[in-house]
Amino acid sequence: MNKFSISIILLLAAAFVCNAQELTDYVNPFIGTSNYGTTNPGPIAPRGMVNLTPFNAAGKQNKFDKDSQWFSTPYEHTNTFLTGFSHVNLSGVGCPDLGVLLLMPTTGNLETNHFKYGSTYKNENAEPGYYRVDIDKYNVITELTASKRVGISRYTFPKGKSNVLLNLGLGLTNESGAMVQIVSDTEIEGMRTVGSFCYNSPENAYPVYFVAKFSKPADEFGTWNTPKKYDGVEAQWMGYNGKTRIMNNNTKMIAGDSIGTFFTYNFKEKSTVEVKLGVSYVSIENARENLEKETMNKSFENVRIETKNKWNETLSRIKVEGGTEEDKTIFYSALYHTQIHPNTFNDINGDYQEIGTGKVANTDRTRYTVFSLWDTYRNTHQLLSLIFPKQQSDMIKTMLQMYDENGWLPKWELNSTETFTMVGDPAAVVIADTYLKGIKDFDVNKAYEAMLKSADQIENNPVRKELKEYLERGYITEKSTKSGAVSITQEFNIADFAIAQLANELGKEEDAKRFYKRSTTYRILFDKEFNLLRPRSKDGTWHEPFSPDTGANFVKNIAFIEGNSWQYTFMVTHDTPELIKLMGGKKGFVNQLEKVFSNKQFDMANEPDIGYPYLFNYIKGEEHRTQKHVSNLIKTHYKNNSNGIPGNDDTGTMSSWLVYSMMGIYPIIPGKPVYTITKPVFDKVTIELDTEYYKNNSITITKQGTGAIDKIELNGRKSDFFISHDELVNGNNLNIILK
Amino acid sequence: MNKFSISIILLLAAAFVCNAQELTDYVNPFIGTSNYGTTNPGPIAPRGMVNLTPFNAAGKQNKFDKDSQWFSTPYEHTNTFLTGFSHVNLSGVGCPDLGVLLLMPTTGNLETNHFKYGSTYKNENAEPGYYRVDIDKYNVITELTASKRVGISRYTFPKGKSNVLLNLGLGLTNESGAMVQIVSDTEIEGMRTVGSFCYNSPENAYPVYFVAKFSKPADEFGTWNTPKKYDGVEAQWMGYNGKTRIMNNNTKMIAGDSIGTFFTYNFKEKSTVEVKLGVSYVSIENARENLEKETMNKSFENVRIETKNKWNETLSRIKVEGGTEEDKTIFYSALYHTQIHPNTFNDINGDYQEIGTGKVANTDRTRYTVFSLWDTYRNTHQLLSLIFPKQQSDMIKTMLQMYDENGWLPKWELNSTETFTMVGDPAAVVIADTYLKGIKDFDVNKAYEAMLKSADQIENNPVRKELKEYLERGYITEKSTKSGAVSITQEFNIADFAIAQLANELGKEEDAKRFYKRSTTYRILFDKEFNLLRPRSKDGTWHEPFSPDTGANFVKNIAFIEGNSWQYTFMVTHDTPELIKLMGGKKGFVNQLEKVFSNKQFDMANEPDIGYPYLFNYIKGEEHRTQKHVSNLIKTHYKNNSNGIPGNDDTGTMSSWLVYSMMGIYPIIPGKPVYTITKPVFDKVTIELDTEYYKNNSITITKQGTGAIDKIELNGRKSDFFISHDELVNGNNLNIILK
Repeated sequence: MNKFSISIILLLAAAFVCNAQELTDYVNPFIGTSNYGTTNPGPIAPRGMVNLTPFNAAGKQNKFDKDSQWFSTPYEHTNTFLTGFSHVNLSGVGCPDLGVLLLMPTTGNLETNHFKYGSTYKNENAEPGYYRVDIDKYNVITELTASKRVGISRYTFPKGKSNVLLNLGLGLTNESGAMVQIVSDTEIEGMRTVGSFCYNSPENAYPVYFVAKFSKPADEFGTWNTPKKYDGVEAQWMGYNGKTRIMNNNTKMIAGDSIGTFFTYNFKEKSTVEVKLGVSYVSIENARENLEKETMNKSFENVRIETKNKWNETLSRIKVEGGTEEDKTIFYSALYHTQIHPNTFNDINGDYQEIGTGKVANTDRTRYTVFSLWDTYRNTHQLLSLIFPKQQSDMIKTMLQMYDENGWLPKWELNSTETFTMVGDPAAVVIADTYLKGIKDFDVNKAYEAMLKSADQIENNPVRKELKEYLERGYITEKSTKSGAVSITQEFNIADFAIAQLANELGKEEDAKRFYKRSTTYRILFDKEFNLLRPRSKDGTWHEPFSPDTGANFVKNIAFIEGNSWQYTFMVTHDTPELIKLMGGKKGFVNQLEKVFSNKQFDMANEPDIGYPYLFNYIKGEEHRTQKHVSNLIKTHYKNNSNGIPGNDDTGTMSSWLVYSMMGIYPIIPGKPVYTITKPVFDKVTIELDTEYYKNNSITITKQGTGAIDKIELNGRKSDFFISHDELVNGNNLNIILK
Repeated sequence: MNKFSISIILLLAAAFVCNAQELTDYVNPFIGTSNYGTTNPGPIAPRGMVNLTPFNAAGKQNKFDKDSQWFSTPYEHTNTFLTGFSHVNLSGVGCPDLGVLLLMPTTGNLETNHFKYGSTYKNENAEPGYYRVDIDKYNVITELTASKRVGISRYTFPKGKSNVLLNLGLGLTNESGAMVQIVSDTEIEGMRTVGSFCYNSPENAYPVYFVAKFSKPADEFGTWNTPKKYDGVEAQWMGYNGKTRIMNNNTKMIAGDSIGTFFTYNFKEKSTVEVKLGVSYVSIENARENLEKETMNKSFENVRIETKNKWNETLSRIKVEGGTEEDKTIFYSALYHTQIHPNTFNDINGDYQEIGTGKVANTDRTRYTVFSLWDTYRNTHQLLSLIFPKQQSDMIKTMLQMYDENGWLPKWELNSTETFTMVGDPAAVVIADTYLKGIKDFDVNKAYEAMLKSADQIENNPVRKELKEYLERGYITEKSTKSGAVSITQEFNIADFAIAQLANELGKEEDAKRFYKRSTTYRILFDKEFNLLRPRSKDGTWHEPFSPDTGANFVKNIAFIEGNSWQYTFMVTHDTPELIKLMGGKKGFVNQLEKVFSNKQFDMANEPDIGYPYLFNYIKGEEHRTQKHVSNLIKTHYKNNSNGIPGNDDTGTMSSWLVYSMMGIYPIIPGKPVYTITKPVFDKVTIELDTEYYKNNSITITKQGTGAIDKIELNGRKSDFFISHDELVNGNNLNIILK
């Protein structure tokens, strides 16, 4: 909304006050679209496969050009040069992929080079399930909406010659290769290669299939192709060598690295064209079926309203009262961002590509994808367990399907490819946390078996590559990794803690003991000299040189991944009482933890330390620090603006932090069903519960007063700053009384 | 056979003498595979869609590398570096196209770069429907055979790791772009883009689809892809940028400009693998159906024998007696080369791609393709009318289908694309010639309408672009063309003569008169000063400068296409009596014609003058010159050797010349059912006739004596040197009595 003129903002604001009954009115899809939030403003259904979004990441006119740096979003709010609208996109990730199947409306003579046909734009507007923009160069209004697997574009063209380009050469992914065929003057089908997330595993590139149907028959159509340039003497006869060739009326299949199609109209008056584009990761036939079953006989407006209604239903799981309109906006926008990934991967008929096998399987549940587990194991799945336990259950079942398929639980799964991005063994945490919260309708024995495999198999273990050394000495050194020896030790500790918790629940006492013991080995890396974690070398001595500051800002180092010792040392929340002891007691702990903030070592933009502000709750009398820091962090980093997320949203992890924090509770120990408490932003929060999983219809969190927390009452009884999931969901009210 | 060791030749020669009952034994598929003959030695069924042939046109190790010059054949006999076996190929053409779907057997570790995996080879052997070679680098024997739409490769691998590569990046065509998917460990499907024949019309590139089935399941398989290289800062993170990526076990669809697949085997002992590869220009499904219906449950040997039998049947239409073994070999090899193009284009279920429309149609006859009509109108279709009238009829019907589809008769049609290569309006000649020979089972009214359209429509006429000026002044100048003004005038004259002949036959007297008149306008270009044709300028004056020699060796010039005035002036065989007059009578004519030969202006390697040696027959008493020149030309230019065709075979035109000339008759006037006579090479030639079209089962041409022709008897009655087609086929014997 930031590009609206002031007058329009005022007008809207007025309308807002009068008619703001819908929760979707509180979602600003532009939040997180700059400052590397890497969200995008385009329409998506809750957990949709299609996310149709403006693509302004290409071209030197832009502040951020995808090829001139590491760039991981199809849309950047401060960019200005639009080259189309891409149908499959990732939200809130730190690596480039997808961003393909780009449609672009133009007018006048055909131009197929996106550097030339791109345009500035204005009057962007977005709400859940809808986006619109005016394209300056062509005076074309573009509106977008989406069902789960189909994107719908509506172009309002001026009188004259107009074109709809489908550019299969361009993409945010660095993969190339596509095939396309114009089926008729209203339909196109084909595929586009994507993959190489984080510049990894280009050998696992894979196709996304599509079918596009146009509401009006094209007056002219064709394909283009820019094949490889030939060298050598013979090339002198190829006047077309290296040039783009336009193939008018071409209904034959074409394939290549840089190809596209155009549909051209000669309008006698201002006219609209709608394009429905269905996708599938299985086949063209399935893409067509997805398109037909989801959107056939539905208008743009039908689909827009259906998707908006779904978003309202989704957002209504949490109702808030009190707080400012701004508070509600950042809250619901964050809740919105938690409902994008993991997203649906199966086609409407249940087909999906298995992971690792290359086979097509069928499911009668939702098959999910985009498991950025190193991020989401910390709070996102906890939020789903609370408000969408059925979804969370299906995600666990998806993870177990993956185990059945390729023998391993996912680590960073993307469209049935394992990207092996980041470190640790986060699936174990998610599964244990879910089960311990009472969501048990999955095969826990299989899950446990899978967790033990990742935790115990030393040879050929793609999840815990560093396991051998970890088991031998309790920690990891340069012997096993070039980067993140301490971080990986901590992540393994956390996963092992979660396994211990589940083992305990399942009555497997030996395992529970064994893994609990494994979960505390980070202690060996605690260096009293610094009161921080420090890497040891393979001979057991402290690693030299060592600076606690090294590792911030993604500087690669032997000890930590994407962080430094300050940002990692407290990331052992399953063992905080012991960490307090190691730091010399309560005072030493509080001092050291405060230093993280006062010395500007705290990084709100990455996961390792995001639980830190809540750790003051472990020290009686110091809980006010948690309340202060959380309030400050919300105020500083979360805004109703494109830069309103601290950094990569990490498929909703940063947003989940905000949702929990604004409600006044936070799942401080991944793998343990416990929340710690801070001051809610809202006077009253009502959380709808799924009675398939929980006995109550809803619970409320209420707040009285304005100062620091004075008293906490859970279901009418006094509580301390830690409450169990069971106590919360089986009660009816958490009442937080401020001074 | 040229690379055989002497001992093997002797052995074979011995076997030959004892067992040479089969006509295929007289075919040497290596004839024409060097000296720019551009035939290839690989197996093809008569008029087959698939022609599976060794591909040695890539790599600097070769004398002729496809990228280092204008190069139009997948196989050159003097080359030495083999990079695979291509399934769709053109025989005897002057421009590069097809030469794709390349399989290559290798051993050891996978290498996908053909410059690296290519190899020298030895022990080549070929016969109709069969080819074999030893690949030096890998010690692999490759054998090839083919049914009409399926190529079968049999590889005999040594013990150890072996690979079968399918390289979809490499091709003789300069087009790129392919799609492929491994369906199972025994099957691959996909498409490859071809087109841009003669470096023209890259916008008409089109796909050839294929399905490949392997006789043994691969132990490992996968795809490779070499996508475009990214530039820019971001590329620093792409360690794989611009490199080939191997995708093991990949069963997902891939597409791109440079892709391929590999099937790998770990053989414990010497083993064979057979690969059946079916093609279609319509769809993958049709390629699979072609494969299954033609070759399923048939072994390599079954298909080899079936195809060989079909060749024997085809060749048996003409039986020769007398002559040397060498004579028979060059004769039957030439006959073989006349039975390759035009080739089958429809799938086994009748489906084919229409020309121009992009639609798929269905036929219950054979749909033919590869109509190199500027070449073949002179003698090839005449030969088909004589020995395969049903095929010739279906070819006419195909031409009329094309007219129905895109509104025009073909000019140089290739796989339902009109390449518009060369000049003139040759389809008219072929149709008239066929009808006048009594082959009338096609819609002659439609044919006549189509011919008139090309001949009369001035605006937007893609066949006769220069028609306006031609009609206005009778000849063409620099106003209408940059090249070939005289040639095009002559070609139009020839076509108009054919139309006049057909008009006459159809009782359209006005048209007959009109077109006959149009057929003689070349006379305006006859310059008495040179006794040759000479271009006029648009102001009507003789074009300056003018040299009768200019234009030989493909030197581009205003007057003539691929020839000079010497090579074109006599190419008005429909009007020879008048040309004789123009040249001042019989003596002037004979002198001038002899000069063509004595001054080394005669070019046996290109079409305009190939009728010349027969023109002496027009001058009574000078017929011996025809006999001498024809005999010399046969001796000089046609050999049982790779350089045994004078130049491009031009889809059988040079071979048709030889077949006719060795039989002692030649269709001297395209469009008129007449043969002129020379001394046959053989004592007796028996031509089988198709009784669906001709009343007799067969006719014979017999020869007595050894000197020049003394007497000619047609069906027992004395004849001069010109006999009509009717007289020939309705009789039983042409007896040529030598002195």
